[in-house]
Amino acid sequence: MFIRFAGFGVGAATFTTVVAATGNTSTDVTDAPFDVSNFMAEPVTPRTALINNKDDMKVKMEMLIMKIQADFCRALENEEDPSKKFLVDRWTRAEGGGGVTCIIQNGKTFEKAGVNVSVVHGTLPVDAVHQMKARGKELVGKELPFFAAGISSVIHPNNPHVPTVHFNYRYFEVTQENGEKMWWFGGGTDLTPYYLVEEDVRHFHSTLKKACDTHDTSYYPKFKKWCDEYFAVSHRNERRGVGGIFFDDLDMPSQEHCFKFVQSCAESVIPSYVPLVNKHRNDLYTNAERDWQLLRRGRYVEFNLVYDRGTKFGLYTPGARIESILMSLPVYAKWEYMHSPPDGTPEAKLTEVLKKPQEWI
Amino acid sequence: MFIRFAGFGVGAATFTTVVAATGNTSTDVTDAPFDVSNFMAEPVTPRTALINNKDDMKVKMEMLIMKIQADFCRALENEEDPSKKFLVDRWTRAEGGGGVTCIIQNGKTFEKAGVNVSVVHGTLPVDAVHQMKARGKELVGKELPFFAAGISSVIHPNNPHVPTVHFNYRYFEVTQENGEKMWWFGGGTDLTPYYLVEEDVRHFHSTLKKACDTHDTSYYPKFKKWCDEYFAVSHRNERRGVGGIFFDDLDMPSQEHCFKFVQSCAESVIPSYVPLVNKHRNDLYTNAERDWQLLRRGRYVEFNLVYDRGTKFGLYTPGARIESILMSLPVYAKWEYMHSPPDGTPEAKLTEVLKKPQEWI
Repeated sequence: MFIRFAGFGVGAATFTTVVAATGNTSTDVTDAPFDVSNFMAEPVTPRTALINNKDDMKVKMEMLIMKIQADFCRALENEEDPSKKFLVDRWTRAEGGGGVTCIIQNGKTFEKAGVNVSVVHGTLPVDAVHQMKARGKELVGKELPFFAAGISSVIHPNNPHVPTVHFNYRYFEVTQENGEKMWWFGGGTDLTPYYLVEEDVRHFHSTLKKACDTHDTSYYPKFKKWCDEYFAVSHRNERRGVGGIFFDDLDMPSQEHCFKFVQSCAESVIPSYVPLVNKHRNDLYTNAERDWQLLRRGRYVEFNLVYDRGTKFGLYTPGARIESILMSLPVYAKWEYMHSPPDGTPEAKLTEVLKKPQEWI
Repeated sequence: MFIRFAGFGVGAATFTTVVAATGNTSTDVTDAPFDVSNFMAEPVTPRTALINNKDDMKVKMEMLIMKIQADFCRALENEEDPSKKFLVDRWTRAEGGGGVTCIIQNGKTFEKAGVNVSVVHGTLPVDAVHQMKARGKELVGKELPFFAAGISSVIHPNNPHVPTVHFNYRYFEVTQENGEKMWWFGGGTDLTPYYLVEEDVRHFHSTLKKACDTHDTSYYPKFKKWCDEYFAVSHRNERRGVGGIFFDDLDMPSQEHCFKFVQSCAESVIPSYVPLVNKHRNDLYTNAERDWQLLRRGRYVEFNLVYDRGTKFGLYTPGARIESILMSLPVYAKWEYMHSPPDGTPEAKLTEVLKKPQEWI
């Protein structure tokens, strides 16, 4: 196996070296975890640490999310003006770890597209650890050593006929005071259209279902429901969008099973979403349609700042990189007192679906 | 004393009646609590209940906030295009009480001006009651009878040279399981400029200080500091604005003392703020200045949705009127990844002050 490291940043040399020869030339991230040549930036963890721990789930997850980030960014750049490329910020966290934040802002297709990887570790107050976990047994201890690796992304297109997508896949490890180590995965992908095109929603859900079904046919129905429940703007009695899948605290039946499932989900982001961008990015739209999009983006902001556990966890984590957390917010959002779309309009049709989640497939 | 009730809404008759003749013709709200002719709408509590309980603090507070609402709305209308008047929504809450929400949206001077009165009662989970109280002794019981009357207002002008103002004054009563009744006042007024005009900030703070000093000279320094601490966008390490006053849990030395103090504060809103609107509402401004205002409004949204206790209390209160709570949000807000104003600009000057609260007088 060829192990290649691309150099990033001033003074970093690009080099190729052979660490092991397994004869395996697959680009599958699990089999060939050290091909980093196409990543948006150098991984967070130093190369030697990655190589020396290549079978550790922490390393496998970091390599997966770096690859997913690169693949997704390239796929989005294909839908963008060729002169507009992702801005790449590689950052470190004083308390341990760091991340790579990729942003397109004010593009032709994308008003704001953010794809963030973070790989952080250190200790956390037990309350903060609870924020990371939806449920499950009580954790023992005051300050617990933790590790978290995740990718999260929100894409806000300019054209109101192109939906917004969000996805987030993450892996956690926490060591309790008694030395017991817990690990779990979480994540999901969900779609927020401004105008409902049922065919598109079905395509989106079907792609996610396919990714789920390969691993466990009970996953899609369960995680689809969880998604509808999680992305609720409760004070508005509506959902943020038309859902997708969402899960947390996944630690069964085995670490490898969970990882493969998460990998399938993450790999389904491009086929589920990018065709919708391509299909609608040149649709004509009116000022009124743009206005409706901004009002819906106001609701997106409400969800993210009031309810989203990931955002809250970020805002309260010492040393968190705020700009990477809040890249999920749109460039523009709007609020109007007592706005309600007239009956029979496409805006009202979307609102109905947001009030009452549907089965799409 | 003449007791006048203006009629509001379809089918409500306007009438004048004499309930008591005290010879007192003062318009002071404490002395003549039942002159409602100039209110924006009929008070929340039925007339007979108000009249029969005129010495009850619940009634005195309701009458005060209805008057403050009307006075402030008229003062703002004076700064607005004469054709643009406050929209008045009088609403009831199924669980008990109601309110009067007054809004100007997309005016010539005001992008959004909201002045909301609410007078609500019922029972609340003890956790929700704790949300209302900054600190103080533990409450005993599970579901506690409560009463809350308050006025709250946020004014977002179009012109970036006119600051945003927020004020909120409120009175709470909670009855514990053992029958013990607790009461307290809270509130404050604070200013959020987009461009720093020190003279204006001094005028604003001086007016508030004068209102405080009449009652207790320790109030202004204490409540000014509290304001700086409360209106912190902690994850940005900055304040929402240049402060003002903020207090909570005020229940000393007497109910009457507290009420008179709150009355002075509420009455100081117009002289502290409206001259600044008048002074700057016709200032010239550039697109770049408007853009900066929208970015700062993004921070305003962050504070209100992530930290503001009043907003959180509202969002989690059963039967709360969401549109009245979220009228505090601007029409437009903006987020830009890694935005930072260049050194030496007026935008950077404001940012410095937001990072480090000043003494203004």
